Amino acid sequence: MLKNDVFLKALLRQPTPYTPVWIMRQAGRYLPEYNTTRARAGSFLDLCKNPDLATEVTLQPLARFPLDAAILFSDILTIPDAMGLGLYFAEGEGPKLERPLRNEWEVRNLTAPDPTEHLGYVLDAVAQIKRSLAGAVPLIGFSGSPFTLACYMVEGGGSDDFRHIKGMLYRRPDLLHRILDVTTTAVIQYLNAQIEAGAQAVMVFDTWGGTLSAAAYQEFSLAYLARIAAGLTRHAAGRRVPSIVFTKGGGLWLEAIASAGYDAIGLDWTIDIAQARTRVGAQVALQGNMDPAVLFGSPEAVEQEVGRILAAYGPGSGHVFNLGHGISRFTDPENVAVMVQAVHQFSRPTT
Amino acid sequence: MLKNDVFLKALLRQPTPYTPVWIMRQAGRYLPEYNTTRARAGSFLDLCKNPDLATEVTLQPLARFPLDAAILFSDILTIPDAMGLGLYFAEGEGPKLERPLRNEWEVRNLTAPDPTEHLGYVLDAVAQIKRSLAGAVPLIGFSGSPFTLACYMVEGGGSDDFRHIKGMLYRRPDLLHRILDVTTTAVIQYLNAQIEAGAQAVMVFDTWGGTLSAAAYQEFSLAYLARIAAGLTRHAAGRRVPSIVFTKGGGLWLEAIASAGYDAIGLDWTIDIAQARTRVGAQVALQGNMDPAVLFGSPEAVEQEVGRILAAYGPGSGHVFNLGHGISRFTDPENVAVMVQAVHQFSRPTT
Repeated sequence: MLKNDVFLKALLRQPTPYTPVWIMRQAGRYLPEYNTTRARAGSFLDLCKNPDLATEVTLQPLARFPLDAAILFSDILTIPDAMGLGLYFAEGEGPKLERPLRNEWEVRNLTAPDPTEHLGYVLDAVAQIKRSLAGAVPLIGFSGSPFTLACYMVEGGGSDDFRHIKGMLYRRPDLLHRILDVTTTAVIQYLNAQIEAGAQAVMVFDTWGGTLSAAAYQEFSLAYLARIAAGLTRHAAGRRVPSIVFTKGGGLWLEAIASAGYDAIGLDWTIDIAQARTRVGAQVALQGNMDPAVLFGSPEAVEQEVGRILAAYGPGSGHVFNLGHGISRFTDPENVAVMVQAVHQFSRPTT
Repeated sequence: MLKNDVFLKALLRQPTPYTPVWIMRQAGRYLPEYNTTRARAGSFLDLCKNPDLATEVTLQPLARFPLDAAILFSDILTIPDAMGLGLYFAEGEGPKLERPLRNEWEVRNLTAPDPTEHLGYVLDAVAQIKRSLAGAVPLIGFSGSPFTLACYMVEGGGSDDFRHIKGMLYRRPDLLHRILDVTTTAVIQYLNAQIEAGAQAVMVFDTWGGTLSAAAYQEFSLAYLARIAAGLTRHAAGRRVPSIVFTKGGGLWLEAIASAGYDAIGLDWTIDIAQARTRVGAQVALQGNMDPAVLFGSPEAVEQEVGRILAAYGPGSGHVFNLGHGISRFTDPENVAVMVQAVHQFSRPTT
């Protein structure tokens, strides 16, 4: 059924003919065709909530580049939106929530949304993308991590100091634990619903966990990531459904992250992947980790960095090539083509 | 002459009666008296360039809290300004440079400014602060790191993707090396002039080195930091002048940083200081590393975190307590008082 399962095999550290590659935010603003569809949709949120258009943009990068996986086009804040916090996008400002959690009663009233009832548009998109892919490559489902979602839910948007959520953490840790507890339940149900709808792998994005102290990360992010791993559906449609966890800025805590129960760890570009592999051993696969800014460089520099990272990982399976963060809107798609080709070419055994 | 040399001794890993403490950006907007002086000065830049006012704000936090060091009040971008790039502050936007380096000829024409000729106002401030301190505590001089200064010089201001400087790094590394080379010479001359004017310790702030890949950090930041360490005046006024290097987000590279030739390493809050101490051994002292956001918490949480960090560092000298990044303008000064007192009290041997 699945014509290309190299990505799924690599996540499970099974032998593969080459190193698979996909790109975080691969359906995005660096692609002119994406911008055309988005203009047609109206807003970013309209695009996310329309399964036809979400399917269209999910497939766009696969038409251009021989990528080894597709990822559901959606927003990280669908869960808080389904919880009733009111997601919206202020022009040029990133996502915002109309009703951030600041008071005890708001926290006490928080409940996990039923995915079928409140997030049906996401599940519809998963099913439709899956049909459209027709087994070409696996489809990745995803969610934000509880701590990352809680950052938005408490701050009401992005932040450079996280003073509301960290103020809560160091003043009323009980309230933050309550938010994380409810959100963890929601994430498990949401990811399992995506798996039921057809997702063949899942990834949890812990974008902001790396802003915590080592001690606070364990208590307020990793503990909940581990609960999610334990609650995930592990087999669907006769296949194992691998899981990936990505804490941006989590390189110092790799050993702990590797013990959280996921099949693979996403790495940002600040860690040497050779050292990362030594530290985690055969416990998990690794995904990453080229600096997205390398794609602002020359095609020769892109090839050189791809070669350096593949060589640093070394022989043997268990590596999925990716950037260390989402691709920038200012990227030249030509350099993406160079990167994808270099990954495939350099990683095939020379015979 | 110096009534309190606990800070200098700790940097050199000599025995001290307690753990010394100072705070990055301790003269800043969280203090009402600072805001009053700043309003009187006109702009932030006027404040930096007026030795009387720079002295006044440098001393303000020392009048409130029993801190163990003073740090020169100045801006990180005085060197690019002296190079003719035109420093200014856009309202609510942070520092900007009018003429960022984008073309080859601009890079070729770059020269290191003579500190006496072009940065006299900083040296005057150092001398005046030193006189006003009257030996109460040591005075720290500082500079931005070559890579951090180059980020501003190429981007023209702050950035969240550093696409201009990283584009240069991955397209024309020769040009970036030329910028870093000239800037390194400038930083050495600038810090040595501060030492000659009276600074008793110096610190290099590598705010943006942590945004590089492990390999690029070594080549484009750490190599130049090591050249600075080798070029610093090591003794002045009959005393050793200790040096501190701080790469925010550099926790993964501690061993390499410890070998760069500085007496102490600044740590951000993402690393467990016990692990950091194990990794660097007796090679360097450590400075840090409480999350500035802990100060948004309750006084009890502040005390608890201070206790946790002191206990994690453990017995023996070589620890200077500090935050892991500059103090936030939204901090309640009452919590700063709690922190400073807790550091002193908890670190004194109980007899």
